[in-house]
Parts: sequence; C-alpha cells; structure tokens
Amino acid sequence: MNISVFGTGIVGKTIASKLITLGHTVMMGSRTSENQEAVKWANENGGNAKHGTFTVAAEFGGIVFNCTKGEFSLAVLKSVGEKILSGKILIDVANPLDFSKGMPPTLSVCNDNSLGEQIQKAYPGTFVVKTLNTMNCGVMVDPSKVKGKHDVFVSGNEVEAKTKVIGLLQSFGWVSPIDLGDITTARGTEMILPLWIRLWGVLKTGDFNFSIARND
Amino acid sequence: MNISVFGTGIVGKTIASKLITLGHTVMMGSRTSENQEAVKWANENGGNAKHGTFTVAAEFGGIVFNCTKGEFSLAVLKSVGEKILSGKILIDVANPLDFSKGMPPTLSVCNDNSLGEQIQKAYPGTFVVKTLNTMNCGVMVDPSKVKGKHDVFVSGNEVEAKTKVIGLLQSFGWVSPIDLGDITTARGTEMILPLWIRLWGVLKTGDFNFSIARND
Repeated sequence: MNISVFGTGIVGKTIASKLITLGHTVMMGSRTSENQEAVKWANENGGNAKHGTFTVAAEFGGIVFNCTKGEFSLAVLKSVGEKILSGKILIDVANPLDFSKGMPPTLSVCNDNSLGEQIQKAYPGTFVVKTLNTMNCGVMVDPSKVKGKHDVFVSGNEVEAKTKVIGLLQSFGWVSPIDLGDITTARGTEMILPLWIRLWGVLKTGDFNFSIARND
Repeated sequence: MNISVFGTGIVGKTIASKLITLGHTVMMGSRTSENQEAVKWANENGGNAKHGTFTVAAEFGGIVFNCTKGEFSLAVLKSVGEKILSGKILIDVANPLDFSKGMPPTLSVCNDNSLGEQIQKAYPGTFVVKTLNTMNCGVMVDPSKVKGKHDVFVSGNEVEAKTKVIGLLQSFGWVSPIDLGDITTARGTEMILPLWIRLWGVLKTGDFNFSIARND
C-alpha cells in the first residue's frame, strides 16, 4: 500500500520504518521537500522510503498517518487542503498536548471536544480514525515490547475505514483493537494522556500500556 | 477503626458494607439524621453500622470516605466545615461528572484542576487522598470481581495518609496500589472517566478495570 506519514519526529520515523518492514511504500511528509530528517530516514530505509512536502506526501498515500505534534496538526492539514485529503483515511496519532504552561503539559482541547473531532469536522470528506495515541511509539509498532495482554483503542465515524485501520494495527501485532465508537470517543483516549504522563514518571519507562482487564 | 462514609448511594453503601465486614465501625452520613437509605443500611448491617448527619458522621470517623456525587461534594463538605474535617483523612472517591449537557457526561473540572485538588485547597488541614474513582463500586471493594491483575491509583500530598489509605485498600484486596504522587495527579485519574464510560458502553458491563501492563 502507498502510505503517507506526516511528521519527522520519533513517532513519525518509528511508524514509517515499521510500515517499510511490512512491505508498504511510504512517503514521509514535512514542511519542506528537503527536510534533513526525512531525507536521512528515506536514505536509510531503501527504495520504498520516500520523502516530500506534506502536500506531495498527502497526494501519494491512500492512508495518511498524522504524527505531527498536536499543536501543529490542524495547521499542517490546512496547508494541504481539503481537496487532497478528501476520500483518504487519516490515522490521527497526535495528542493536543500544551507545554506552554510548563510541566506536566495540559491538553489544548478536551472534555467536550478533541483533536480527532476537530480534524474530522474540518475535513468532512476525510475518514479520520484516532488510534495509537495512548502509548509510546516503540509500543505502537511492537506491542510485544510490553509483557502480557494490553490494548489499543480505535475511534472513528466510518466502519469501513476503521476495519482497514484495524487490519493495519493487526499487522503491527495488535490482536484485538477495541473499537470505542465514533470520533467523539477520541475525547476519552486523548484525556488519558495526563495519567499516562504521571505513570511514566512513576514507572521511569515509557514501555508500559493500558490494558482493560475484563472477564470475557 | 471508626470510619465515616458520606453518601447513601450505591457507592457509599457498597464501601460502608465492606468496611463493616472488615470489622470497622462505620457511620453513614447524609443530609438529614433520619435519611431512609442510611437508616435501612444501618439496620441491615448490625451494631457497628451507624448513621447520622454529615456533621455527626464527620466527627465520628478518623477517616472519611467521600462517596457523594461529585457535583455536590464541595457543598456537602462546606456544610460540615473546616474545623471538623481538619486532621482527618478524606478518601475522595467522587468524580466531577456533569450530566447537565446530556450523555455522555463531561467533567465539571479537569485539565488544569480536579475535584481532588479543589477539596484539598478548600480544606488545607485535611489529608485528601484520591483513589478508587476509576472503577465501579463492586470492583472497588472486591478486585477479584475482574479477572487477572489490574490496578488502583492513589493521589495525595501526605505520605503518611497515603500509607494508611493503601493499607485500607490492601484490606479490600488491592495488592499493589500505584502511588501517582501528589493530589495534582488526581487530574489524571478523574480524566480517564470519559474513556471508562465509553468502555462500559462497548463491554456492556461495569465489571472491568484499567490495568497498567508493564515489564517488571
């Protein structure tokens, strides 16, 4: 599959590299066509690893991973525009973390809205699926990094798009992703970030994850 | 131990009854001295089960469980007053759920504050410990209701108070409560309620719990 990954940070690179190992052709998108991180990543990941501007990358992929920082996500998508994003699946991995008031960060949107919903509302023709935003990126692409059974959540309005995304998650090693419902359920997963951050402080590692203990 | 339980709803009754079975003397507090639910609970739970107004109950217990609805908690505590609550451990089980805008509820306070913090700020001489607010009340008092390892979180400023509360949680069956840190960490546990509510909808049962999967 042709997949775009927006963002050249650790999350973008980790997901993009995993997609390459799974046989996909991946274009890493960034603000400029010759972003050093994107060029380096493409050089290191073989012929199926490409790079380009956000717009060029968005045109390339049928699926777009949003791995930009939450504070920039809406501006990045705006720079691409509704026409190019229409009809595509946008997998939103970002969290609306606001570091401007010091540590620990707060959320710039929460409670009666979420970044996932903001994106879906701005791009009604795009199939936004929120997932993977509740764990660190090493665990996102390799759930076996954390012992035992643990969970990934999926939120989105379109069943068909979620089915495709769940298939992709399964190829990452997630056996049974939990479909929470429509995109408004992204509020719930974005709002566990403050607890994730505190647990990171207590456990002194990011290699942990939320698991939903249940009797079935 | 003499323990007060504020609130005559299902959470208050479940915790109060558990405390009786553990050998404590428990006074259930409510708005009026002859609240029917409190009278009935006391009659059904033997000589160690008492009832009274919030003020009488607060005077009785060295530990006070706040099991009132989050929207009323601050008003209830105000009716008791700082003098009586001073020096006591207040175990805050409530969540600031706001049902006024329809379902699912939002939080009336979150992100840069929490109900736990509001209570601690209003009663600086009280040792507020937030815990048990991330699961249904059946699981609170009997973790074996959910299969496997799962977790309870503790937030509070005073180590000694948290140690006492952790001992009480252990008597409920919680082997290793996770101490998240000071009372500001209550933001994290209160903010997972929106996800809890969505999971309840998906799983069709409240008998589940968050577990932190980790490698140690």
